[in-house]
Amino acid sequence: MSYFEVHSNDPGSAARQGVLTTSHGVVETPAFMPVGTAGAVKGITPQQLKDIGTEIILGNTYHLLLRPGVDAIEKVGGLHKFMAWNYPILTDSGGYQIFSLSSLTKIDDNGVEFASHVDGTKVFLNAEIVTELQNRLGADIIVCLDQCASFPADVALLRTSVERTIHWAKRARAAHANPRQLLFAVVQGGIDLQLRSYCALELIGIGFDGYAIGGLSVGEGHDNMIETVTHTAQLLPEDKPRYLMGVGTPSDIIAAVKAGVDMFDCVLPTRNGRNAFAFTKDGPVRLRNSEHISAIEPIEQDCDCYCCMNFTRSAIRHFFNCGEMLGPVLLSLHNLRFYQRLMAEIRHSLERNEFADWAARKLRKMQSR
Amino acid sequence: MSYFEVHSNDPGSAARQGVLTTSHGVVETPAFMPVGTAGAVKGITPQQLKDIGTEIILGNTYHLLLRPGVDAIEKVGGLHKFMAWNYPILTDSGGYQIFSLSSLTKIDDNGVEFASHVDGTKVFLNAEIVTELQNRLGADIIVCLDQCASFPADVALLRTSVERTIHWAKRARAAHANPRQLLFAVVQGGIDLQLRSYCALELIGIGFDGYAIGGLSVGEGHDNMIETVTHTAQLLPEDKPRYLMGVGTPSDIIAAVKAGVDMFDCVLPTRNGRNAFAFTKDGPVRLRNSEHISAIEPIEQDCDCYCCMNFTRSAIRHFFNCGEMLGPVLLSLHNLRFYQRLMAEIRHSLERNEFADWAARKLRKMQSR
Repeated sequence: MSYFEVHSNDPGSAARQGVLTTSHGVVETPAFMPVGTAGAVKGITPQQLKDIGTEIILGNTYHLLLRPGVDAIEKVGGLHKFMAWNYPILTDSGGYQIFSLSSLTKIDDNGVEFASHVDGTKVFLNAEIVTELQNRLGADIIVCLDQCASFPADVALLRTSVERTIHWAKRARAAHANPRQLLFAVVQGGIDLQLRSYCALELIGIGFDGYAIGGLSVGEGHDNMIETVTHTAQLLPEDKPRYLMGVGTPSDIIAAVKAGVDMFDCVLPTRNGRNAFAFTKDGPVRLRNSEHISAIEPIEQDCDCYCCMNFTRSAIRHFFNCGEMLGPVLLSLHNLRFYQRLMAEIRHSLERNEFADWAARKLRKMQSR
Repeated sequence: MSYFEVHSNDPGSAARQGVLTTSHGVVETPAFMPVGTAGAVKGITPQQLKDIGTEIILGNTYHLLLRPGVDAIEKVGGLHKFMAWNYPILTDSGGYQIFSLSSLTKIDDNGVEFASHVDGTKVFLNAEIVTELQNRLGADIIVCLDQCASFPADVALLRTSVERTIHWAKRARAAHANPRQLLFAVVQGGIDLQLRSYCALELIGIGFDGYAIGGLSVGEGHDNMIETVTHTAQLLPEDKPRYLMGVGTPSDIIAAVKAGVDMFDCVLPTRNGRNAFAFTKDGPVRLRNSEHISAIEPIEQDCDCYCCMNFTRSAIRHFFNCGEMLGPVLLSLHNLRFYQRLMAEIRHSLERNEFADWAARKLRKMQSR
């Protein structure tokens, strides 16, 4: 039995439903990974994550490296123990954060030197170091160091970043020393489909346990993103998981599933939850609105999350209005449950061969308000 | 059967163990009430409160009156529904907050006009209005409007505040219109034992379902406080619950239980939890200290709370260091569990006639570091 098995394929699209087996358990795909930036999904306990159907979470290597440092995490027994999450974890490469958060001091084919966004400390990373750090953190899935280009990107820079990403992936593959971890490489190339093809085929030639599609959701817009994802995903091996990094809204996710993507991560459910923005099956609800002051209904009718089963919109609005921490906590919980229900519906509709109909209905309903 | 039954008395002190029955269930006493200031115990879900052994919580009438307003809470079905807590609740009178948080504009025997600390809105309250507001909020136990003096207090002002507290209590008793709610009056009088006696005896003459001791923990110090509590509690009826407002540290609570107090509320477990200060059986632990950077032990050895069962000191320190919301959430949870375990130990030692020995050991251990 392989660590990744596809159980259903949608006859009308590249969408598929399957199971990914890791050292800390199985993940049903398509899967959504809540983001545990610095060792915690903001405000949510691991028990709450499990209760809402989370099977895998993401940790940011960049953030964990700066604070508390890989030594501290290793000393207490690794990332699973540190986060109190004894289920699958994926750590990213840090590539995205290095390029978006740091003062970048120097980058060449060998590696990248940058100043920490926390205290300015100079840090040097290369493909081998990032792999070793992730080997020590101990996540179930780790990701090769990549170079993420900004959008819109200069074509020469984009080409350089693709070459470097391939070169670093090869070195990461060679350095990878923990057989309990799956190693994913990242396809870069902006919205240049030729570069995406080149990058994908080179990485496939090296051979990885899974393939991420990176460098999207950086300002290119939904249509460009989906075109790029559709083009890239169909180049990737059928028998390996495909992970679209940092995406996205519910409609982004549904479109990317159609393109054949199996895994997602995004800060939207928690970030929007902290900003009083709720995802619902009828479209967004903004909980700060005064219309909710004595609204007895839950955030989302028929939602089975702890927030919706127990609290009125009136109470949630009040918590945000007063700066009560329970507002962000409960709304993040609801939004995360919304995402997990979305993924469960995607999987069930694929199992039942009803994905196309389900997706059309879902998108229509979410956009109807 | 009375709503309050004493089951054990300590032979060496006034301490007693009993059961208080309310419209939303029973409360074993001595009991600690976490403070749900504005409709939420900061950062903690009602489910988490229940899981750590909480039987009753406190809501602040002053805060709820200003935001979201009693109308909004009544419209969604009352305070229990609003807070998603279907167990006993006590609401205080707002007296303490009116005098500590508001710009006080005018007070006389009729009532008090003050400016909201939120937006400056003028609000007028008197004994009848405060009782009616609490009747509508629907807590299981409500408290008569009282006037809280500052410390140290001018003796004439203290006397006036006591007279007014008695006068308002009589009016609250007459106005009280919800037979499902117990009505408590507040004994005031600063640390003047004669005034405390006078106030207690006058209130007992009127007759209430329980008696609170207010106006303490305002700067008078542990010894003055305990002297006042000991003096006041022994004047109060044996068959009525006694509630010491806003107190306190674990050693304050143990000393007040000896004096015969049955109920407590305090923000310390949650406020200290948000400030990286942990209560433990071996004394305080400050989680920001760098000594914890790779500390694999829990906050408190043998603690059965979710935080201690799952997280290392290393992780909790890291969460505070990064401003991760999970730090305050988990540490508040631990501190609240510490308080509930303290109360459970008090009750069990009283049941087993071992309170004096238990208290001496406990205090020695907490002060040994």
